[in-house]
Formats: sequence, structure tokens, C-alpha cells
Amino acid sequence: MPIKKALVYSLPIILAAGYAHAAGGGGEASGHGSQAMVFLWIALILIAAKVSGLIAKLGQPTVLGELLVGVLLGNLGLLGFHYFEPLKHDSIIAFLGELGVIILLFQIGLESNIKQMAKVGKTAFLVAIVGVILPFIAGTYLIGPWLMPGLSSNAYLFLGATLTATSVGITARVFKDLNKLQTKEAQIVLGAAVIDDVLGLIILAVVTAIVTLGAVSLGLVAWIIAKSILFLAGAVVLGQIAAPWLGKIFSKIHTGVAMKFTLAISFCLAFAYLAQKIGLAPIVGAFAAGLVLDPVHFRYFKDPKALRDIKDELQEADSALKDRVAKVMEKHSHRHIEDLIEPLGNFLIPIFFVMTGMAVKLETMFNLPILMVALAITLAAFVTKMMAGLAAGKCNKLLVGAGMIPRGEVGLIFAGIGKSLGVVSDAVFSVIVIVVILTTLLTPPILAFLLKRQKEAV
Amino acid sequence: MPIKKALVYSLPIILAAGYAHAAGGGGEASGHGSQAMVFLWIALILIAAKVSGLIAKLGQPTVLGELLVGVLLGNLGLLGFHYFEPLKHDSIIAFLGELGVIILLFQIGLESNIKQMAKVGKTAFLVAIVGVILPFIAGTYLIGPWLMPGLSSNAYLFLGATLTATSVGITARVFKDLNKLQTKEAQIVLGAAVIDDVLGLIILAVVTAIVTLGAVSLGLVAWIIAKSILFLAGAVVLGQIAAPWLGKIFSKIHTGVAMKFTLAISFCLAFAYLAQKIGLAPIVGAFAAGLVLDPVHFRYFKDPKALRDIKDELQEADSALKDRVAKVMEKHSHRHIEDLIEPLGNFLIPIFFVMTGMAVKLETMFNLPILMVALAITLAAFVTKMMAGLAAGKCNKLLVGAGMIPRGEVGLIFAGIGKSLGVVSDAVFSVIVIVVILTTLLTPPILAFLLKRQKEAV
Repeated sequence: MPIKKALVYSLPIILAAGYAHAAGGGGEASGHGSQAMVFLWIALILIAAKVSGLIAKLGQPTVLGELLVGVLLGNLGLLGFHYFEPLKHDSIIAFLGELGVIILLFQIGLESNIKQMAKVGKTAFLVAIVGVILPFIAGTYLIGPWLMPGLSSNAYLFLGATLTATSVGITARVFKDLNKLQTKEAQIVLGAAVIDDVLGLIILAVVTAIVTLGAVSLGLVAWIIAKSILFLAGAVVLGQIAAPWLGKIFSKIHTGVAMKFTLAISFCLAFAYLAQKIGLAPIVGAFAAGLVLDPVHFRYFKDPKALRDIKDELQEADSALKDRVAKVMEKHSHRHIEDLIEPLGNFLIPIFFVMTGMAVKLETMFNLPILMVALAITLAAFVTKMMAGLAAGKCNKLLVGAGMIPRGEVGLIFAGIGKSLGVVSDAVFSVIVIVVILTTLLTPPILAFLLKRQKEAV
Repeated sequence: MPIKKALVYSLPIILAAGYAHAAGGGGEASGHGSQAMVFLWIALILIAAKVSGLIAKLGQPTVLGELLVGVLLGNLGLLGFHYFEPLKHDSIIAFLGELGVIILLFQIGLESNIKQMAKVGKTAFLVAIVGVILPFIAGTYLIGPWLMPGLSSNAYLFLGATLTATSVGITARVFKDLNKLQTKEAQIVLGAAVIDDVLGLIILAVVTAIVTLGAVSLGLVAWIIAKSILFLAGAVVLGQIAAPWLGKIFSKIHTGVAMKFTLAISFCLAFAYLAQKIGLAPIVGAFAAGLVLDPVHFRYFKDPKALRDIKDELQEADSALKDRVAKVMEKHSHRHIEDLIEPLGNFLIPIFFVMTGMAVKLETMFNLPILMVALAITLAAFVTKMMAGLAAGKCNKLLVGAGMIPRGEVGLIFAGIGKSLGVVSDAVFSVIVIVVILTTLLTPPILAFLLKRQKEAV
């Protein structure tokens, strides 16, 4: 029965693929493996993530638990247990994780607001600039040539570039886990991370041009800057005009929560798409979408069902009671979009962080010379971003600096491009992977420690 | 910048795929196309689905709107507009749709309960049996040989088999759209669809054995029946024991809604996996999971956030008010799991139905001789299932019969296997595709009409 087993109720695939699967006869469905297997994997990842939440009892952010459980699952192969290996290569799980970090940044955007962000804008800009220049200089001119002598100058250039880009997902999640998203420090880090992404785009263009053409076109740099600013400003301005208008139109079709949810999530996905089209990270688009959406834009939609039902039920009560309850409900119904998005986040976000943990290859740590170099460069990666925090003005500078530490996907993409250009060697690549691993895993406990200390100081 | 564009923030894929993408240099990311594109597609599907909700103003279930908007998007190619073609073949979108129909059946299971199902069990069994035997006889011995003379007896056997399996997704969605899930008729159809799936498994085994071996092994049939019963009974019994136990254990890690949501969804996915492992449709497992989960199992978890906040806020109120509000809230907090699952359903379910619509190939209708045969066989497909409704005893028999009409994925899988065995010709295959299309698209308005008539009669 394996054919049916793997294929029942997959009409779209079957029709689209011209019955290629069914016609295969007898064997297991190929491609992305059995869909049932993916269902099981998702269940396992979600449950493992929740079990790892026990780490909260040690005062650590739950994201650290998810990362560590991922590291564990991803490296069981070292103990000869290869059950989870195919999971790492599954494109569907990877996509769900992607969608997870998009939803996370959308949530973070929803919880932030434009005025607050504008207030810290200048500071965030300074932090971003310093946080890009210092690691770049350190990697390219100081610690790179010093620890790994004899490489081409282009190799150092790429090493420096990989150290610049902050990966905001981890930090945002820690602030969220510990309920600190509304602090000035969190807002600065978020703002700086968005600017960082634009700077990263420029650096990648410049470095790639130097390596391939031997020179930089100023026009290209200007174009990147122009379209990035255009996107961010356009998102904020047009979004604030379009959202209420869309809200009004769609509320004429239906005023239920499903419609409200759909509008919000589609807004988020469309912005993520546009950001990526322009060359920015999709999470920057998702964050902008969250920032733009304001409860007031969707005021034509009704309260959540439970609240509505309670209201209905109290209709027969005396008017004093009704008024009182209505007032309290009014106050709480504005959180609405966040509440609707939350279950989707609960479903997808842990997948992202567990998969990030699973991508950690512990065996890269086993080569002692490489490990030593990587540790030194990790230290430089830490110190240079902490120094960027000093540009943050009056606030907890250490916290801002620490928030900028995580390096991730962007650095790895830079490294991957360097490798494909023949500039980055396998050894340098391994070093960069270890730097990403360590900055990712060490930042959550450091942030938790700093936040705890701050609380005690107050 | 296309490399970064397509890859930023995709750490898991990048690490897993050994930087194959990044190393590709310059070009667009291949494989599943740009992730950004998938984000845009999802947004477009969701918005299109919601716009199609306008059909509700004509008294039609919204699922019909989603199917039709899918047919439209999927056949724009006939007008020379091929923008949506790649969407049809995207494995990620297809998977999200799969997950959507699983969530739908889980929701339906949550809204049903075991006692109610047990009450209609015998009736459902009768409806299922008659609804399998009649179409089989009609296809194999009557209308098949009559309309398409000269084929092998095995070809008629496969035609008959494809007409047996009910596709419950459409009907369940119509009952849900029109708020009729709690009716006796809906319960009978749901029960019959589960039994139908078991019978379908048996028929497929028998037919395949006859074609390939020339004979049937009774042992195989007994084994399919045994493991199906074992799964369904095991799901109900073990689920009811395991759920409260799991609820208790996991509530010790955290008592938030995220934990409750995760447990519920993992339960659903694990059951879907097990069902598919056994050879049943994953949606049968998801339905069983929903049937088993009872609010009482998760009583250790807290109320939804908004309700909790309102309660907190009313703490200072006088106790009479507090008691009154608390009572109303108590009543509404039991719907909790459904409320948590709802946004996920809003996200995924429209994808399934729009994709189902997109899979409709209108060009199959252009061959007049094939279309005429298909129309006649569709009529037989309608009539035989309507006759099965007559076995339903005291209730709206027409409604039960009509609810059993939709054929879908299972029939297509049968046809696909027949094709791969060289038994089903291209012409017969086209006929079956048209039967699936017509039963899928015509059932929603028929059910809506019957439900409306019933209401007027009362």
C-alpha cells in the first residue's frame, strides 16, 4: 500500500506532477520524502522545543533551549544515530522555519511603533555604522592577517565583510522571551539591525566588485542606498495609507477575524517579498509591515469570537455591568492582530530556531588549530560589536552592544559567495562557521545576564 | 544582488545544502524557486480566497468561492497568461495545502465528539457500505462496459474502484461554512467517510491483486481490516488515556497557551502520521485526533490571554460582578483549543481549496466524446451515492447522499495506479479527472440548496 500511503489526499501535487508519483508504482514517494514523515518531524520539533523550555527555570531565554535542542538533534549522528539527518535537508521544514522568522519579526514590528523607533533612529544609525566599520577593519586589516598570515588580501576582505552583519532574529527573540521589547535598548538594536542589513548589502556589492572587477562602481552603491531608503520610507508612508483603505474595503466582504488575520498576514508576506525583491532581507520587510500596521487601521473588524460571545451573553445584564465589561474589553481588543498571529508564531518560530541549532556542525570544533583561530576571531566579533554599543548614548550600552553580537545567515552567505569566487578557503570557511555558531549560542545567556543585572541595579 | 536576494536568512538550507545555492553564483536560486516568490504566492492565494468569499452573499458556501477562484487562476494559461503556472508545481505550496486539509479535519474532529459519532456509527457503516458497493457495480458492470465498450475487464474494474471513494474535505467544509457540523446528517457523513477510507484501502488491494496476480489473498484483506480497526480503536482508547497524562506533564514545564497549542497540534500531526503509516489517509488520523482531544484533558493550562487579562482587571470589582463575569468566561474558555487552532486554519485551509481548484484542467472538457462519457459517468457517480443516503434511516437522506458525492484524491490515485499498471487508458483517465472535477465543484451548491430547503421546511 505504500503508494497510497504516501499520496492519499495530495490532489494538487498529483494533478500537477502529471501522476508521476502514482505512476512510479510500488516504491516510497520520493522528492521531499513522505509527507507523513514531515508531519511527524514537525510534531517532534515542536515538542522538543517545548521540552527545552525547561531552560526557563534556569533563568535562560527559551530560545537558547530551542537552539540547544537543535544542536543535540543535529549532532546525534556523531553518536551513530542518524535518524534526524534527512530532516536537515528537507526543503519544506526549511521553508517553515523561514516563515517562522518572518512571523517573529512581524510580531516584533507589531509590538514596536514608528514614533518610538524614530526617537532612537539617530542612535540606531550610529550603532549600526560603528558596528559595521569596526568588525570590518578588525577582520580585514588586524586579526585576519595576524592569525592567518599568507592569504590574499581579498580573503581578508571577505573575512571582514562576514563579521559585519548582525543577525537580529536571536536578539529579538531574547528580548521578547524576557519581555523587554519595549525598552530603549531593544528599539535601538532593532533599528540598528535594519540599517545593518542595508549596509550589508552595500558591503557585499563593494567586496564582490573589488574581487571580480578590481574596482567599485559608485553608481551601484548609490543605487543600493537609494532603493533601500525608497523601500523603507515607501513601506512606512504607503503602508500607512494603504492599510486603512484595504481594511475598509475587505471589511465589506466580511468582518470576521479570519479576514482581519488574512489581511495582516498577507501584508506581512507581501512586504517580505518586496524587501527580498529589492535585495534586503525578507525579515526587514516583515518588520516594516508590523511597524506600519496599527490596530486603528483594522477598526472595521469585529472583536475576537470569545470576547464577542461574552459581550452577547451579558446583553441581558444591567447596563452598569455591561458598560464596565465593555470598557475593559475595548481596552483589550486592540491587541487583536498580535493575538491572531500568535498561534502561527507558536507553530513556526520554534522550527526556525531548532533548525538553526541543527545546522550547527559540532565536528567543525574538532580541528584544534582552526578552533583556536576561530575562538580568537569570535572574541574580535564580540568586542567590536560591544564597542559599537558605546555609540548608543544614554542607555545600557553593554546591552545594546551585546544585542548586536549574533552573526548568522548573512555572514554565511558572504562566506559562501567568497568560496564560490575562490577567495575563501575551506579553513577560513570553517572558521566563519564556528564564529556564527558561537555568537549565536553565547548571545542569549549574555543578554539574559545583562538584563538580570540591570534589573537588580534598578 | 540576486544571490543575497534569494538566500538571505536561510541558514538551515544553506548549511544543509553545503552552500550549493550560494556557490551557484549570480543566478536566481533554483529548486523551489525564490522563497520570496512563495511568500507572494501565499499572500495572493489568501487574498484571492477572501475576495471569493463574496460568494457568501449569494448564499453559497465560501469553499465554492475558493475552488472557483482556484479554477480561474489555474486556467488563465488558456488565455495566454502563464504567471500562475509555476505555482501549480510548487512543492511547498502543495505541502501547505496538505497541512491545511489536515488542520480542517482536526478542527472538524474537535467540534465533533465520540459519543455523538458512536450514536450514528451503525448508520454511517451502512451508508459507507452501500456507497461503495453501488458505484463499484455501476462502474464495473453497467455504465462502464455500456459507454466504453471493448476495454479489458480490468479497466472496468479500475473505473468502478475509482468511483467508490468519498473525498470528505469538501463536504466537511460546506457543513462548517454553513454552521451545520452538529447535525445528525453531518455526523453520519463524517463517520461514513472514515469507514469509506478503510473500504477504499481494501478495494485498492483487491483490485491491484486481481490485475497483477490474477487472484486475491484473503490474508491481505484481513490484515488491512485488522490494522485499520486497531488504529481507529487504538487512537480513541490510547488517545483518551495519553492526552490528559501528556497535558499534566507538559503543564509542569509551562502553563501558557503556546504549550497547549503545541500539544494539540503535535497530537494532530502525530495521528496524521500514524494513519498514513498504516495506509489510511492522514486526514482520518487528524480527524481521530480531534475526536479524542477533549477540553478537559488540558485543564491544567490557563485561559487565553485576553480573557485572563479581563479577569485580572476585574479583580478590584465587587464580587457579584466578578462571579458573574467569571461564570460566563468559564463557559467560553472550553472552546480554547479550537480558538487556538483557528488562525492556523485560516492560514492553511484556503491554500488547500484554491490549489484544488487550480488543479482543475478545463482543457480536459474540450474533447466532446470524452466529455459526454464523463458527464454520464458523473451522473452515475451522483446517483449511486445519493442511493447510499437512502440507507441512512431517519434523517434527511438526500443530504447524507449528497454529502457523499465528492470524489477526489483517492479516486485519482486509483486511476494513477491503474494507468501505471497499463490498465487505464488516457481516455479513461481523462474521464475520471472530469468526474472528480464535476463532483467537487457541484457538491457545494447542491448541499447549500438542500440545507436551505431543509431549513425552510422546518
